Amino acid sequence: MDNRPINADRLWADLMDLADITEPGRPWTRRAFSALYLTGRDLIANRMRAAGLTVRLDTAGNLIGRKEGRRTGLGTLVIGSHSDTVPEGGRFDGILGVAAGLEVARVLQERAIELDHALEIYDCLAEEVSPYGLSCVGSRAVAGTLTDAMLARTNDTGETLQAGIDRMGGDSTRLTDAKRTNIAAFLELHIEQGPVLEDETLEIGVVTAISGVTRVLIEVTGRPDHAGTTPMASRADALVAGAELVLAVRRRAESQSARGLGHFVATVGEARVIPNAANVVPQFMSLLLDIRSEVRADLTAFLAALEGDVAAIATHHVGVTAVLKPVSDNPPAPSDPQLMADFRHAADELGLKQRDLASGAGHDMAWFAHIAPSAMIFVPCLGGRSHCPEEWADRDAVAKGTDVLFETLLRADRRLAQTTPSE
Amino acid sequence: MDNRPINADRLWADLMDLADITEPGRPWTRRAFSALYLTGRDLIANRMRAAGLTVRLDTAGNLIGRKEGRRTGLGTLVIGSHSDTVPEGGRFDGILGVAAGLEVARVLQERAIELDHALEIYDCLAEEVSPYGLSCVGSRAVAGTLTDAMLARTNDTGETLQAGIDRMGGDSTRLTDAKRTNIAAFLELHIEQGPVLEDETLEIGVVTAISGVTRVLIEVTGRPDHAGTTPMASRADALVAGAELVLAVRRRAESQSARGLGHFVATVGEARVIPNAANVVPQFMSLLLDIRSEVRADLTAFLAALEGDVAAIATHHVGVTAVLKPVSDNPPAPSDPQLMADFRHAADELGLKQRDLASGAGHDMAWFAHIAPSAMIFVPCLGGRSHCPEEWADRDAVAKGTDVLFETLLRADRRLAQTTPSE
Repeated sequence: MDNRPINADRLWADLMDLADITEPGRPWTRRAFSALYLTGRDLIANRMRAAGLTVRLDTAGNLIGRKEGRRTGLGTLVIGSHSDTVPEGGRFDGILGVAAGLEVARVLQERAIELDHALEIYDCLAEEVSPYGLSCVGSRAVAGTLTDAMLARTNDTGETLQAGIDRMGGDSTRLTDAKRTNIAAFLELHIEQGPVLEDETLEIGVVTAISGVTRVLIEVTGRPDHAGTTPMASRADALVAGAELVLAVRRRAESQSARGLGHFVATVGEARVIPNAANVVPQFMSLLLDIRSEVRADLTAFLAALEGDVAAIATHHVGVTAVLKPVSDNPPAPSDPQLMADFRHAADELGLKQRDLASGAGHDMAWFAHIAPSAMIFVPCLGGRSHCPEEWADRDAVAKGTDVLFETLLRADRRLAQTTPSE
Repeated sequence: MDNRPINADRLWADLMDLADITEPGRPWTRRAFSALYLTGRDLIANRMRAAGLTVRLDTAGNLIGRKEGRRTGLGTLVIGSHSDTVPEGGRFDGILGVAAGLEVARVLQERAIELDHALEIYDCLAEEVSPYGLSCVGSRAVAGTLTDAMLARTNDTGETLQAGIDRMGGDSTRLTDAKRTNIAAFLELHIEQGPVLEDETLEIGVVTAISGVTRVLIEVTGRPDHAGTTPMASRADALVAGAELVLAVRRRAESQSARGLGHFVATVGEARVIPNAANVVPQFMSLLLDIRSEVRADLTAFLAALEGDVAAIATHHVGVTAVLKPVSDNPPAPSDPQLMADFRHAADELGLKQRDLASGAGHDMAWFAHIAPSAMIFVPCLGGRSHCPEEWADRDAVAKGTDVLFETLLRADRRLAQTTPSE
């Protein structure tokens, strides 16, 4: 694509230069709150400045590059994502969204394009689960949902998240200053982290919603008998009952996913057995479920069915009881319909194959959606793999996504300026 | 029972006095190779001496009290068990067998009964799984099956088992001296550690065999996809496949136990999931199986069926593979038929309700059976519970078991002396 607005080589160089800033021998690792993370942000800030942006840190430690608009009072268009990685993660998750914002700013600069709105590129602090056990630290602050309890969480060394934010250049005494009320639109570009676009050989996925994330714990309690002496018929084996519930979760999730109203998946990712000794019939098993639902009704139906399975354990297994306990519940964050339409039109104009799909993963967008019209797009990634060193997206694929982001920005700027009278 | 040979109160006092020698605040814990263990053995050695026994430690660290017989050349009758406990274990497992031997020696002394055979009471070193990861240390040495590889095992502090044996008063440079070739009969009394006698309101269980203990590992490998983004149909979930195998083990074990030739149980006691993270589809699961079989053919049939289940995983779950690996295999140790008959006759004479049953748990007897005619009896324990602080056996129940042990000793002494010509 010779007439594409953005420079694919320049974008790729940003990605690879950031990838080089990794823990040696443990690619690709640039954890939020580390010294390496600050090194990565220095590179981003320098390239923001070279693209004509004014760089600042907000009080929550978000790194922001700003370009003023032709008009005032219109609010700000934001392109954002994050530059931190999980341990032994990839080179694209989050980083692509920040690099794409940077490239968009450079194209505006070199073509001397003036937007009506101000534009800000956000490198949000700590989108991945941080050493303090919390994800989306920066974007939660922008939405005003970072609580004192969250700030009091500690890392392995006992440092609080609050102190960590200050160490990253924030000012936790004025955290509410990071909250935004004047964002006209939030846009994000991200790798899919799933196999759908690759499987269907599509180039752009327009995200309909960030799925809600609900976590529940199933606790199964039996009796710790001697594994050698207790006859099979006399056992109350928590692992056997727990295994039935693992299969029930799978069966219910498959059926809910097939007949549901939107994206739906449920996973038992964590399982613990007590005492977990070779010669003792398991006394206890816990199962931590992660449930992602684009549509709330799917979650409700799934949990109602699962409650029945959990209650039935006591009747199927004499001496075994099971309970289901809520752990956390973040509702779905739907995309703004008009921004979705902007994305779709931009992709059509560029001749790119696209579809709508929900995001099963969490993103900074979910928090910006609390306070502003927000939307995001996906580009395909190899094998749907993510959060691993093998995470990969093609140069051409990320360039196409950035093209769409650029065209959508121009389109949203025009549309939103028209609907807001001049001052 | 007023005319019982043994003194129930005296026996009970031994049990309770040994129970008092426990880690404070963590009853009932007297681990082999600890200082407390040596304190317990001091008490046992003193009471052995008071019962007229000559006390020695063999080179493997077994504590032995000996009373000479009227005749020489007949070999030695041994009553044995162990005085160590598991962490937070009970007051009867093993300890009852040693205390019963002590009480038998006292009755012989106070009634001035002379046996034809010499009698030895063995307090075997470390029957429970020791800090070096090995069980039945002392009785393995008696059987001559303690290998150099076993002796080289280390505890948490890096000390070898060999050094531990020396620290307990053994002499590891002359370990083969502990091996016995002149034992005429080995007798052991133990709590059942299972529910059969209590359920059937029986007083004595005559053990037909110590079940073989076979351990195998099933390793299930899938793919660690993102739990939020990967559609249900695209997953290779090792935990789901592993859960099916847990249920297959249970189903196969129930059926083998119902139609088998002897005692048969199989347990998945240990399960591990990798990465065991809430938001990652499980990549790997391992299941450690403990299989106890009185009859070898039951084990063979069970493993053949299970191999089929394991192989079928790859066809039922795209992208998942499972393998079954041998870990360890100790064959069953059958009891000596004549000693079993001695036990049965003694119980009948005393008017006690009895049955034959296999032991699902391992015991020192299994190792003595390698080198001598051996047999053991069980007395009921509360709820079949063992290896826990709640482990309990009634004063009357342990006294009855000791009565049977005493009468059986006299019976075996006569029988074996008759079949061996005087020198």
